[in-house]
Amino acid sequence: MGPHPAVAAIRLAVRRVLHDVLTDVATRRTLTSAHTGAPDIPHASHPPHLSQTPDFAHELPPPPLVLVACSGGADSMALASALAFEAPKLGIRAGAVTVDHGLQSGSDLRAAEVVARMTALGLDPIESLVVHVGRDGGPEAAARDARYAALDEAAERHDAAAVLLGHTRDDQAETVLLGLARGSGIRSLSGMAAVSGAGGRYRRPFLHLDRQTARKACMVQSLPVWDDPHNADPAYTRSRLRHEGLPALEKALGKGVVEALARTAQLSRDDADALDAWAAQAESSVRDAGGLLECAKLFALPPAVRRRIVRRAAIEAGAPAGALFARHIEEVDRLITGWRGQGAINLPGKVVAQRQGGRLVIRQG
Amino acid sequence: MGPHPAVAAIRLAVRRVLHDVLTDVATRRTLTSAHTGAPDIPHASHPPHLSQTPDFAHELPPPPLVLVACSGGADSMALASALAFEAPKLGIRAGAVTVDHGLQSGSDLRAAEVVARMTALGLDPIESLVVHVGRDGGPEAAARDARYAALDEAAERHDAAAVLLGHTRDDQAETVLLGLARGSGIRSLSGMAAVSGAGGRYRRPFLHLDRQTARKACMVQSLPVWDDPHNADPAYTRSRLRHEGLPALEKALGKGVVEALARTAQLSRDDADALDAWAAQAESSVRDAGGLLECAKLFALPPAVRRRIVRRAAIEAGAPAGALFARHIEEVDRLITGWRGQGAINLPGKVVAQRQGGRLVIRQG
Repeated sequence: MGPHPAVAAIRLAVRRVLHDVLTDVATRRTLTSAHTGAPDIPHASHPPHLSQTPDFAHELPPPPLVLVACSGGADSMALASALAFEAPKLGIRAGAVTVDHGLQSGSDLRAAEVVARMTALGLDPIESLVVHVGRDGGPEAAARDARYAALDEAAERHDAAAVLLGHTRDDQAETVLLGLARGSGIRSLSGMAAVSGAGGRYRRPFLHLDRQTARKACMVQSLPVWDDPHNADPAYTRSRLRHEGLPALEKALGKGVVEALARTAQLSRDDADALDAWAAQAESSVRDAGGLLECAKLFALPPAVRRRIVRRAAIEAGAPAGALFARHIEEVDRLITGWRGQGAINLPGKVVAQRQGGRLVIRQG
Repeated sequence: MGPHPAVAAIRLAVRRVLHDVLTDVATRRTLTSAHTGAPDIPHASHPPHLSQTPDFAHELPPPPLVLVACSGGADSMALASALAFEAPKLGIRAGAVTVDHGLQSGSDLRAAEVVARMTALGLDPIESLVVHVGRDGGPEAAARDARYAALDEAAERHDAAAVLLGHTRDDQAETVLLGLARGSGIRSLSGMAAVSGAGGRYRRPFLHLDRQTARKACMVQSLPVWDDPHNADPAYTRSRLRHEGLPALEKALGKGVVEALARTAQLSRDDADALDAWAAQAESSVRDAGGLLECAKLFALPPAVRRRIVRRAAIEAGAPAGALFARHIEEVDRLITGWRGQGAINLPGKVVAQRQGGRLVIRQG
């Protein structure tokens, strides 16, 4: 008899991602050895009758390490259990990190408990990372920034090939709705990527699995899970969305909403990627010999492409991407599409946009 | 003292659209007269001392007619009042149509009441259109189809330059959420267009105004409004969304949600238009001499463009657009990106997609 369907599902999801990680590691190592000229894989054509120990035997690379970021919640506990099960079969070392945000009293004890659970799963190395959460961008963004900085640092220190994150399809649906509330276009609707971070470090094996499956997998494996009180705290936008917004939306629109939101994320991401590529390519064709943007040429582009070029130019001039809203870009766009002698337009980051002699000039003011 | 701000807002919105309609009418008439060679505007250079009545005086086109579609609800009553106020100042005739769906007892009396109100506003012509609502696509879609068919017929019979519809920003937000629930990509997120229908017949002047402004404008003008019981009937998806889904989302995400959704609609529409244009243009470059789609060339395109070409090809082969979901296109896409000898794929409308000799063949099965 095979494992419970929920356990089979989480293991399959992790196995697929580990295969991708191994492929990427092999590609990177081939590229590296091609650069240095050092062999890293014994050649099959090596004469087998030579009894000497090959010189490069001690140079064989160590098995790659994959870390799981675990909070002790059901999603990441399920992920850790699946990693512990699958990694050894693929010659991968499996480790874990947990982040102590220090936001609640007893968070250190909680972290110690997670370490104990990871140890019980046989993971190694295991680390508890203590972070200091600032205030920039609100409590959720600050905690996230601190967490990823710590994970980045740990991944580099351990030379990890990947860090697995337990985000589920439900988290993805919430992220899409949060992006929708910004009203800043399809990039913000594209949610979390299955692969992200420097060199594709972060992987989200559960992005197509629902939260219920992860929870069920913990239950049938008798894994204790911890429910973060933050997740139920109505002071947090995501928590309100999870417990009130999304259920109300499901009641109005039907049970398929979470899946539809997750699918919207994927489609939006592909669309945003294609349009970004178009804008990057078109940008060079709308610049004059001096490198300035020509309004007449910009005018001829589809609005979606033109606004992306304007946005890129503003960011290049120093406007912080996160502070640059759709209404800023629209206003600059009117210098091109509705020119009637408007003055300079102030953008975030002390960037100024103005039209001069048929050119759109965006620079530090 | 000027009018109440709400009244000023609805009038400004209508005035802007009427200006657009006049521009379009002038353009169309110029094009027509260029074709026929008949003058339709007295030339300013015509020698004024010639006392003869110009031959073309009796050929002067009649003033254009703009109709408002009015249900008697606050949005369309406000729209009718603004049209009645603004149209005469621009030399436009203003008329009205109301649609009796025959879905509730007394709907004929209701329609007669709306006609009386339109008469009181001085609109002319005024028509009450009785429609038969079928069952295709559910009650809301069937009512909408019947309504637009009747409006199209009336607009043609009266040779109307435009038909104004009272959809507000709130309706737009609801439409975006309904599209989101389909999970079929950014085209379904783009809501209602400000201009749509044959020759740009339908115009939605209130797409950037909120429902509250329309309601307020009716109140301060002492216009009686009718609340359609369907709008509060939880049997209707849109009604559930309006009274439960959206308020819960606003509670979780903040009051700006409606505006963010409406902005998302506009951005998504522009993005979808640009990508459709790209796909239309790329399509010819991926066909072989015999007109078949070459898989290798499709593979090289961005996924967003490739999937649109696949979708276009499926619709061209007879698959009904409304029944063609993202998962269908994904499965066909795997014939290109994940070829491992799969068999033919059945699509809606008895359309079959298969890979043959490196070509993607989509046709009636």
